[in-house]
Amino acid sequence: MTLETTLAAIGPADEQAMAAARELQGRLTKPAGSLGVLEELSVRLAGLAGTCPPPMPEPAAIAVFAGDHGVHAQGVTPWPQEVTAQMVANFIAGGATINAFARQVDASIMVVDVGVKIPLHGGENLLEANIRRGTHDLAVTTAMSEDEALTAIQVGLSVAGALVEGGAKCLLTGDMGIANTTPAAALIAAFTGASPADVTGRGTGVDDETYARKIDVITRALALHEPDPAQPITTLAAVGGLEHAALAGFILGAASYRVPVIIDGVIAASAALVAAALAPNSVAAMVAGHRSAEPGASVALANLGLTPLLDLGLRLGEGTGAALALPLVAAAVRVLREVATFDSAGVSEK
Amino acid sequence: MTLETTLAAIGPADEQAMAAARELQGRLTKPAGSLGVLEELSVRLAGLAGTCPPPMPEPAAIAVFAGDHGVHAQGVTPWPQEVTAQMVANFIAGGATINAFARQVDASIMVVDVGVKIPLHGGENLLEANIRRGTHDLAVTTAMSEDEALTAIQVGLSVAGALVEGGAKCLLTGDMGIANTTPAAALIAAFTGASPADVTGRGTGVDDETYARKIDVITRALALHEPDPAQPITTLAAVGGLEHAALAGFILGAASYRVPVIIDGVIAASAALVAAALAPNSVAAMVAGHRSAEPGASVALANLGLTPLLDLGLRLGEGTGAALALPLVAAAVRVLREVATFDSAGVSEK
Repeated sequence: MTLETTLAAIGPADEQAMAAARELQGRLTKPAGSLGVLEELSVRLAGLAGTCPPPMPEPAAIAVFAGDHGVHAQGVTPWPQEVTAQMVANFIAGGATINAFARQVDASIMVVDVGVKIPLHGGENLLEANIRRGTHDLAVTTAMSEDEALTAIQVGLSVAGALVEGGAKCLLTGDMGIANTTPAAALIAAFTGASPADVTGRGTGVDDETYARKIDVITRALALHEPDPAQPITTLAAVGGLEHAALAGFILGAASYRVPVIIDGVIAASAALVAAALAPNSVAAMVAGHRSAEPGASVALANLGLTPLLDLGLRLGEGTGAALALPLVAAAVRVLREVATFDSAGVSEK
Repeated sequence: MTLETTLAAIGPADEQAMAAARELQGRLTKPAGSLGVLEELSVRLAGLAGTCPPPMPEPAAIAVFAGDHGVHAQGVTPWPQEVTAQMVANFIAGGATINAFARQVDASIMVVDVGVKIPLHGGENLLEANIRRGTHDLAVTTAMSEDEALTAIQVGLSVAGALVEGGAKCLLTGDMGIANTTPAAALIAAFTGASPADVTGRGTGVDDETYARKIDVITRALALHEPDPAQPITTLAAVGGLEHAALAGFILGAASYRVPVIIDGVIAASAALVAAALAPNSVAAMVAGHRSAEPGASVALANLGLTPLLDLGLRLGEGTGAALALPLVAAAVRVLREVATFDSAGVSEK
């Protein structure tokens, strides 16, 4: 699917299915509202699927999009850039946290190289789709061309399509890219109007000096590019990253198939803003997995009107928070599919 | 095991295993601290098991203790008392929310009748251990005798022992009992010194008038019994419930086997206060599954020094919040067991 046909395919939530889910929740053998946010989640998922009950979000598939960042040269992180490629190798070998969590929640993992600087050595679950070996430094020039941004979006669309066509009933966003919280914060500031200080966090745990430098870099980048949120592709190309672009496409792809996509942390949340700017209805497909420790994630989720399911102080990325949220999404759906009604179970009402 | 030998068997956390877990977390391929509260949870579980890494909490077993309450006569809930037995039948038939969640997280369910008013008709996973057909009205007399409270504790101990001896590596608390948030609030007020208004919630969703009556009933009960937290069994017998007592025993049983026990909502949290009063070291075995919408649960967890993993606005009981937390507990352990170190994966450090 092209971006244009994808955007055209993303319709609004089905109000009738949502009404049916609300009505069903009220007849199940539990006090009304006693499952808190999971009840509203089940209603949203019915609206997305256009049917009540909605299908179970299983099997689920995680896509980890990896890229490098020219802005690394500004000293926004203490980690060497080679760690991106090393961690991709770790994902392929099954040794990273996202691998452990994927095994826990029974989700598959596909790793997608959209912009890693160092050539990778392949692997069973690695998709080679490198667009360029790292972005330019967004503090001094546009991070990538608009063509490159569109190509990365297309990669994300294609990955979503391949996974859904392969049977996935739920997609989970993952990311890897040393320095990628800097473009994420820049995107969030650009799309929400929040100040760089309010959306910039300590990423992997930077010291005070690096943190101040990071805010300064983002402030300078916004002054340089003057990004216009009404021009999402231009904004993405100016201050984003290749994995951010691919994730925006991945989210749009999920929405076009009316399959839920669990948003992980700050990288995915910034990509979700790009997706929402391109197709406002795509928000109906988004489930916020968790509240990242990165402040920009909360700003982005609030802008999208999404309430995160988990709040564990996570700041790892890779898709880890999305993976941990998957059983909650499945449980919310399972209630609509499996719990008996007062009538069918012969339970008295109050 | 008797209560006495159980209490004697509950030792402190193993500091050496905790130190080893902290050290290992620092060598795994992720930024230090990036898994937030799951890292500290993994350290606690190592301390409980006395080994690093600790064993996976699988298979996991939920025990749902059911009982009725004489205080129902005070009009503290709009639900008829027969719903306790009807919901037990629903658990046995597999139609309740806890059944759906147990299937989701691959946990077994045992239902234990310790005090249901209406005789039950049996079932494959029902343990008949009825001590009396509902407690007395705690607003006018002691809810049960101390012997009955001790017998219920013994049932909980025996269930924990049977499940662990049968292979369970993690226990989850469940409860069912119309009106049981009233004795739970009374126990929490008695053990923490908090005021009835601060620990009383709306349970299944009572109206303003019933809510005010519930606070008044608890206030009167505390004035009548003057419970002394230094006398846990006397306090439990005066204002508790049979399922609360059994849950206290269940938690102590888990602690004596050094197996984690996931605390569900306000009923389990009140039982956890009883357990902690009898054996302060038992807190090391407790994992707070979620922050119930019932205010008393938060008061109890704060008193125990426990941070809940989930905060979804749940107020259903049955063990639902504990079940949803199980994959998080498993994920926390899995990190220590499966994630590669910087050294083994050849990933550069910052």
